[in-house]
Amino acid sequence: MAGSPTGIGARVRRKEDPRLITGAATYTDDIQLPGMLYAQMVRSPHAHARIVGVHKEDALAVSGVVGVYTFDDLKDAFKAPLPCGWAAYPHLKNPPHWPLATGKVRHVGEVVAVVVAHDRMAARDAAELVRVDYEPLPAVVDLEDALNPASPRVHDELADNVSFTFDFASPGVEEAFRTAEVTVKQRYYQQRLVPNAMEPRAVVADYRPRTGELTLWSSTQIPHLLKIFLSGLLGVPEHQLRVVAPEVGGGFGSKLQVYPEEVAVAALAMRLGRPVKWTMERREEFVSTHHGREGFVDMEFAARRDGTITGIRVNWVADMGAYNLLNGPYVPILGFIVMPGPYRNKNLEVHIKGVFTNKTPTDAYRGAGRPEATFFLERTMDLLAAACGLDPVEIRRRNLIRKEEFPFTTATGLTYDSGDYHLSLDRALEIVGYDRLREEQARRRQQGGKLLGIGISTYIEACGLAPSQATAGSAYGAHLYESAEVRVHHTGKVTVFTGSSSHGQGHETAWAQIVSDRLGIPLEDVEVVHGDTARGPLGLGTYGSRSLVVGGTALYKALDKIRDKARMIAAHKLECHPDDIEFGESKLYVRGAPDRAVAFADIAAAANLGSHAGVPQGMEPGLEATVFFSPENFSFPAGAHVCVAEVDPDTGKVQILRYVAVDDAGVIVNPLLAEGQVHGGIAQGIAQALFEELRYDENGQPLGASLMDYAVPTAADLPDFESHFISVPATSNPMGAKGIGEAGTIASTAAVVNAVVDALSHLGVRDIEMPLTPPRVWRAIQKAKGGR
Amino acid sequence: MAGSPTGIGARVRRKEDPRLITGAATYTDDIQLPGMLYAQMVRSPHAHARIVGVHKEDALAVSGVVGVYTFDDLKDAFKAPLPCGWAAYPHLKNPPHWPLATGKVRHVGEVVAVVVAHDRMAARDAAELVRVDYEPLPAVVDLEDALNPASPRVHDELADNVSFTFDFASPGVEEAFRTAEVTVKQRYYQQRLVPNAMEPRAVVADYRPRTGELTLWSSTQIPHLLKIFLSGLLGVPEHQLRVVAPEVGGGFGSKLQVYPEEVAVAALAMRLGRPVKWTMERREEFVSTHHGREGFVDMEFAARRDGTITGIRVNWVADMGAYNLLNGPYVPILGFIVMPGPYRNKNLEVHIKGVFTNKTPTDAYRGAGRPEATFFLERTMDLLAAACGLDPVEIRRRNLIRKEEFPFTTATGLTYDSGDYHLSLDRALEIVGYDRLREEQARRRQQGGKLLGIGISTYIEACGLAPSQATAGSAYGAHLYESAEVRVHHTGKVTVFTGSSSHGQGHETAWAQIVSDRLGIPLEDVEVVHGDTARGPLGLGTYGSRSLVVGGTALYKALDKIRDKARMIAAHKLECHPDDIEFGESKLYVRGAPDRAVAFADIAAAANLGSHAGVPQGMEPGLEATVFFSPENFSFPAGAHVCVAEVDPDTGKVQILRYVAVDDAGVIVNPLLAEGQVHGGIAQGIAQALFEELRYDENGQPLGASLMDYAVPTAADLPDFESHFISVPATSNPMGAKGIGEAGTIASTAAVVNAVVDALSHLGVRDIEMPLTPPRVWRAIQKAKGGR
Repeated sequence: MAGSPTGIGARVRRKEDPRLITGAATYTDDIQLPGMLYAQMVRSPHAHARIVGVHKEDALAVSGVVGVYTFDDLKDAFKAPLPCGWAAYPHLKNPPHWPLATGKVRHVGEVVAVVVAHDRMAARDAAELVRVDYEPLPAVVDLEDALNPASPRVHDELADNVSFTFDFASPGVEEAFRTAEVTVKQRYYQQRLVPNAMEPRAVVADYRPRTGELTLWSSTQIPHLLKIFLSGLLGVPEHQLRVVAPEVGGGFGSKLQVYPEEVAVAALAMRLGRPVKWTMERREEFVSTHHGREGFVDMEFAARRDGTITGIRVNWVADMGAYNLLNGPYVPILGFIVMPGPYRNKNLEVHIKGVFTNKTPTDAYRGAGRPEATFFLERTMDLLAAACGLDPVEIRRRNLIRKEEFPFTTATGLTYDSGDYHLSLDRALEIVGYDRLREEQARRRQQGGKLLGIGISTYIEACGLAPSQATAGSAYGAHLYESAEVRVHHTGKVTVFTGSSSHGQGHETAWAQIVSDRLGIPLEDVEVVHGDTARGPLGLGTYGSRSLVVGGTALYKALDKIRDKARMIAAHKLECHPDDIEFGESKLYVRGAPDRAVAFADIAAAANLGSHAGVPQGMEPGLEATVFFSPENFSFPAGAHVCVAEVDPDTGKVQILRYVAVDDAGVIVNPLLAEGQVHGGIAQGIAQALFEELRYDENGQPLGASLMDYAVPTAADLPDFESHFISVPATSNPMGAKGIGEAGTIASTAAVVNAVVDALSHLGVRDIEMPLTPPRVWRAIQKAKGGR
Repeated sequence: MAGSPTGIGARVRRKEDPRLITGAATYTDDIQLPGMLYAQMVRSPHAHARIVGVHKEDALAVSGVVGVYTFDDLKDAFKAPLPCGWAAYPHLKNPPHWPLATGKVRHVGEVVAVVVAHDRMAARDAAELVRVDYEPLPAVVDLEDALNPASPRVHDELADNVSFTFDFASPGVEEAFRTAEVTVKQRYYQQRLVPNAMEPRAVVADYRPRTGELTLWSSTQIPHLLKIFLSGLLGVPEHQLRVVAPEVGGGFGSKLQVYPEEVAVAALAMRLGRPVKWTMERREEFVSTHHGREGFVDMEFAARRDGTITGIRVNWVADMGAYNLLNGPYVPILGFIVMPGPYRNKNLEVHIKGVFTNKTPTDAYRGAGRPEATFFLERTMDLLAAACGLDPVEIRRRNLIRKEEFPFTTATGLTYDSGDYHLSLDRALEIVGYDRLREEQARRRQQGGKLLGIGISTYIEACGLAPSQATAGSAYGAHLYESAEVRVHHTGKVTVFTGSSSHGQGHETAWAQIVSDRLGIPLEDVEVVHGDTARGPLGLGTYGSRSLVVGGTALYKALDKIRDKARMIAAHKLECHPDDIEFGESKLYVRGAPDRAVAFADIAAAANLGSHAGVPQGMEPGLEATVFFSPENFSFPAGAHVCVAEVDPDTGKVQILRYVAVDDAGVIVNPLLAEGQVHGGIAQGIAQALFEELRYDENGQPLGASLMDYAVPTAADLPDFESHFISVPATSNPMGAKGIGEAGTIASTAAVVNAVVDALSHLGVRDIEMPLTPPRVWRAIQKAKGGR
């Protein structure tokens, strides 16, 4: 690594924060265009109904209203239904999903019509005056009901409510269960979550009829993929289509989508020849942004009496909601990928069933399948420990892949390249003081009063979405690359174009650090451009903790090319061999002779503008490089999280006393950013464990669909986070980075639930359904007591 | 060449015209930003004066006025004076030129203050109310006066009014004149011209105080260079500075500048934190946009009696106006470069003196030195013909470089790579019917009435500004490259980023044709992006007929890289050798077996998105390439123009009967575009010969500084143009292109004046000062008659 105090590993503050915290950032809703119109969605109040008629007159009478548009009004604009990236998967049924409802509505919140007006308030007022005649139909709400052949169907054209099936079995599973000394079995529920990014979704579309150019600003995680899909959906050639993700205020997967509103607003801008803006209200988040999780699993372990797992069986029913969204079906499959966890067992059988219901569709939400899989696995580890009479730590130690076993190929065929799972567990236990905690737990159980529980979660993650069997059937194919373009200006300032885009992660800082590190220049000399398809090469976006691992690596490799050329120019000027040139302090110098130096700015000037005398004979001018990096393998972050929780047996209230995370994200570019990711991730994992749930009534009406009712935790509900790292570099990329965007969420839900159940295990509590609210915990205690 | 009906050589219509002719194009003045303010310049009414005081009160009292700003108000924003690109030239004196006048004004129209208001009309009204107290000083107006040591000085700090001197002499000149059998000598004047592009200059600046980002839209020919200069002038790091040249309505060199208004408007946007727009009024063009030409030359030929030129001496005094602008001093030096013309003589002596006067500064105007040099040379060729008793054709034939002499190194050290000068002359004479015209001329002279004249101009041009001694002292150094970036999208649509930018030439069409040709895809699949420093690599802009020769070549070479990679993918799919792959009809196919084909879109999809199976093992994803092309030599267009003019001896009125141009621009990409360039160029050349002139009175007040008075010719004043081409490919670039942007202007002024003087030569008329208006021609006739 080149020397730079702001390079890889430096704990520097975020470059982007000054504009963000002073309100100077431009989010999609901040875009103002001359002559802009405003759209408001008319949404279905029914979970399942036939649309009998739409009456526009009252809405059209509102002053400032330009028009009211239904599917029939816009159908010529829609060249294809909304995409499901896995439509080619042979075991998937994919009924069409149009941007506006046609004939029927299938979930509360589905868009039935769009009102366009000269101002936002007129659009809102008018939307309330659009009268839609519905013929209500029975709704499919409960997952088990949905699978009942006697149930109504969400999609008439299908024989049942099954969206897809996925089946996998390694050969030894049956034998493992036949010969098992111990088996444990448990059903777990994953409640439905609402992502609730800080910034509501928003879209602005601007179409130039005479040139055919369409520009779309959207609060999206995937500007480039959105461009590709919109091009097909609207019939706009992609070289005339520009998608910009300006500042994006959070996503957590919920902006990894091609939304009805994005297509409808673009179609309306094309129809009307004027810019159109749509900004979501918070209440729309609860019914129109895709949801996360929801499903249940029957989980079964076969093991030896000493705790060695010999086989795992998983039957997973996952709720797709009313339609297959972009990656909805892939979410449980991504769970399947990490289902072996950090353990040595190679006998695995997984059956996944995706099910349609009359609810808002689900798709990726932070972790996307991996928190679920880790939860199922880590909960069952604790049950197995109990069944074997072992400590939860001991059962893990006996099953964790050992350091010397890497590279380790799992039951699913993936190869974990590197790791030290015992080390992270040991570190976490040491930090938390595990043995003393167990003593304290025992003491409290004797004393009465609040009970103590210790929950452990050892996890692995798979980041960077490399080519694998898991991508089979994807419309994306297997080029899951990321791009980087580096342009060194003549003064030595650097602009980086990255296909990744930030929705809060801090790409500008981390990418600038990589540049600072590799070129030996200060952070302020680096500009990072992302989120604009018109600026920089095609990129695949930000999700799956892939940005640094794939996008950062593309940048790293592009910088290698810059370094090579810069070295040649420096060697020419300094009359030495290029291999002897080092970078640092904005200079290139001869190794061992720092006085023999040339300023980086002079190299940049020579390459871009300087005379031929300044560069080697025949060298092409310019100092820039573009790299597309396509990883050969996933990276595999891993770690151990320990939650210490206090449970009040009289009220059922859970208080987290300590939360210790020891994560291995490989090489860390910026510990501050990494810790921020871990903190936020744990917060969301705890939220699932203890607080959040969107429930529906039997008619498919969401209950508590507002921030007044839906319990997003506040800082006061959360513990201090103790985030620590070990670093076993990844071998799949030159930086050795593994990814850290989702680890906190993946590990923490299981750790928290394990802690609460651990606190109550002596009472006979075996499991509690999430979220672990005081009433539920209290009832579990009462039930356990009654059961004895 | 790949087969494409819209490829290189095809006469296709311009892609950009639909939006231009329907008013859908966005020029700088069309940019609307929320909260935008409007600037109006307060300009000096004096040619030379001391500024005693500026009274703002009345202006500030106008409703809507935000402020009135002088140099003192903005001096902290100005980090450096306006640039002269040749400041490093050792024989140049370069007094500072600030965006706003400080202490003194040195020409009518110099900016003294800027008024900013909420609307344009308020700014204009208020500007008239800014009262400036001046102490008038004697003005330096006439060039010969300026050189008089007793003359006042334009810049107090200098000892005289000399801006720079340039001296060159090849060794044999003195001997040539000592042994000459014939000598001719003549002084020629070049009047001052006003470029008058269709679109007045305009600037919009938008600054984000919290992020430090500055975006500047300007009607400029050089967005990238403007960015580089503004970065230094304003202290904005160049990676935070974006310059956009939107649609630009003509330039002819007048937008190849860093203008006071560009800097002042940017500084005001930074000061005020709000967008600021300035749009010129037409009357400002006459005093604030740089002017072209103005100077005089004493020209001397030494020759043998048979007409062979043996030596040329040139003493050139060029008017810089009040300041050295960006390229002002380089204009006559560029004339020096072509001073040998298409002739074999190798004895050349050139002395150039740049002179300051209290007039609007001069700089490049279409041809930039080369029309002047060609005029001096071609006028003297006719005088030499007369002195030797030879026909003007014959004198040229005897001196033109012969086809077999290429490559030919001139007196100035340049090497003409290819040409056939006799062929173009012969073709032109054949087309015009030279011999019959001479008979007709003789007949008319006998008959009386209107006289006939035939004017010939054989010229060479030097395009593409390659490294050479001529660039010595340039701030640009010698990397006079151009860049191209080609991005093939996954559907096979192509975006091209070019550092050249169009101000009317038709880059979008020509560049798309090169892509169409090389990739075998239709024009509509190609988007050409230019004029935005935030999109695409650094480029050096459009001037000197360099776009196609340098920028087009960069594109051609980038397409070579695309072709190579596409061929490898196609060969992989078609199981053949990459060398056997051809492009055409949006396909890649096996040579000789067109049925074995794969769609270009499939190649693009495989490279960008496809599975690893679709591309050869280990190939990096993506299909894009960037090339910086730095030419090793100028290209040398050449040709012969013949003007047939009728002169009414009673009124002095000149009527052009025919105008035949035979140009060698090497390989022509689009004859329609090339002819358009020739037509426009000839129109401007004729305008100088017959119509245009900006005169000043003895106080430095411009006379006739409006389109009511300044005689820009209309279509009715101009003949039909007969544009023909011969094609001797250039060897300095793979397309063989030579450049055609200025040829018409370079050749035509001399051809027209030669024709008029030829018509009157039998009367003893030897020369007439331009423009050849009827009174001047009439007086010349009277004087010649009187002289006899």
